[in-house]
Amino acid sequence: MKSSSSPRAAKMVVLRWGHREERDKRLTAHVALTARAFGASGFILSDVKDEKLETTIAKISKNWGGKFSFEMGTPWKQAVESWRAKGGIVVHLTAYGENIQSSDVLSRIKAEKKPVLVIVGSQKVPAAFFSKAVSDFNVAIGNQPHSECSSLAVFLDRFFSGSTLTMQFEGAKMRILPMQHGKKVVSMKT
Amino acid sequence: MKSSSSPRAAKMVVLRWGHREERDKRLTAHVALTARAFGASGFILSDVKDEKLETTIAKISKNWGGKFSFEMGTPWKQAVESWRAKGGIVVHLTAYGENIQSSDVLSRIKAEKKPVLVIVGSQKVPAAFFSKAVSDFNVAIGNQPHSECSSLAVFLDRFFSGSTLTMQFEGAKMRILPMQHGKKVVSMKT
Repeated sequence: MKSSSSPRAAKMVVLRWGHREERDKRLTAHVALTARAFGASGFILSDVKDEKLETTIAKISKNWGGKFSFEMGTPWKQAVESWRAKGGIVVHLTAYGENIQSSDVLSRIKAEKKPVLVIVGSQKVPAAFFSKAVSDFNVAIGNQPHSECSSLAVFLDRFFSGSTLTMQFEGAKMRILPMQHGKKVVSMKT
Repeated sequence: MKSSSSPRAAKMVVLRWGHREERDKRLTAHVALTARAFGASGFILSDVKDEKLETTIAKISKNWGGKFSFEMGTPWKQAVESWRAKGGIVVHLTAYGENIQSSDVLSRIKAEKKPVLVIVGSQKVPAAFFSKAVSDFNVAIGNQPHSECSSLAVFLDRFFSGSTLTMQFEGAKMRILPMQHGKKVVSMKT
């Protein structure tokens, strides 16, 4: 098993835009949990607040371990400006962008060797998201319509070359013992 | 760009268990669209029916092309038995299964060279899903809680080695023209 320190060294935060509390509650929770499980260090729910979501994510982090920041209500523009001011780059996941499979976009992103803010939108994102003023890279996980959740998972899996799927999360109260058949969760001594 | 014939030659159908119409409407739509976009040939919504979901998926397939079967209401046990009777294998995606990154489970699945029924569950799946009687393989896309949508996307991306992300979907009315910055959709002549 690989340690958690190496993949997470590349700082990566996921910004979720366009969340509507009732309609998107499960989907946004899945996006945030995907961010955590695949090695992002934090999550920003932009422009709106959702206390229930915050509680859900906090509970998962408490039980399953690891450090995962959660921020909400920050206007997206402010989050982007602040990220760039600190030397980070912005990657917008969208079906309209450069295809991660047929283009060299992923290697160009990696070559930057900078912290990455990944913007995950919803159906109708502001046109500005596609512009250079906001996104350094527009990346498509295939150019077919599917899901922001799937796009984020595949982007992170490929960015980290799969290494984050075996991370140990520090301070976990429980861990799954992988099995061919059956279910096993072990409680960790603290 | 690769053609659609080669990756789809490995027949793959996704079975979604545990859908509740109101609670899961967006999530299950995302799972179905992920199945389609990442190269599965069809989708089974087991045990329940959801006409709205069927309409959503049909509309996407009509506009964006390709053949993608949609079936609903079939009891999961019947779908599994019928799949196996035709010589297929069953892969259950679950956080409790063998880790796709640290184990050799993916190569063992590929070595079978058989049609694959991928079961995508929800929070509390029947215990039988983990047993040999139902699932030939239990596969974890990492052993942390996240999302059935993310699990499916990464499983398909890895199974098809990324090749399905550049498929051309036959009979599409429109196609995205991938761009570094901006949005472009072209209408296809029919």
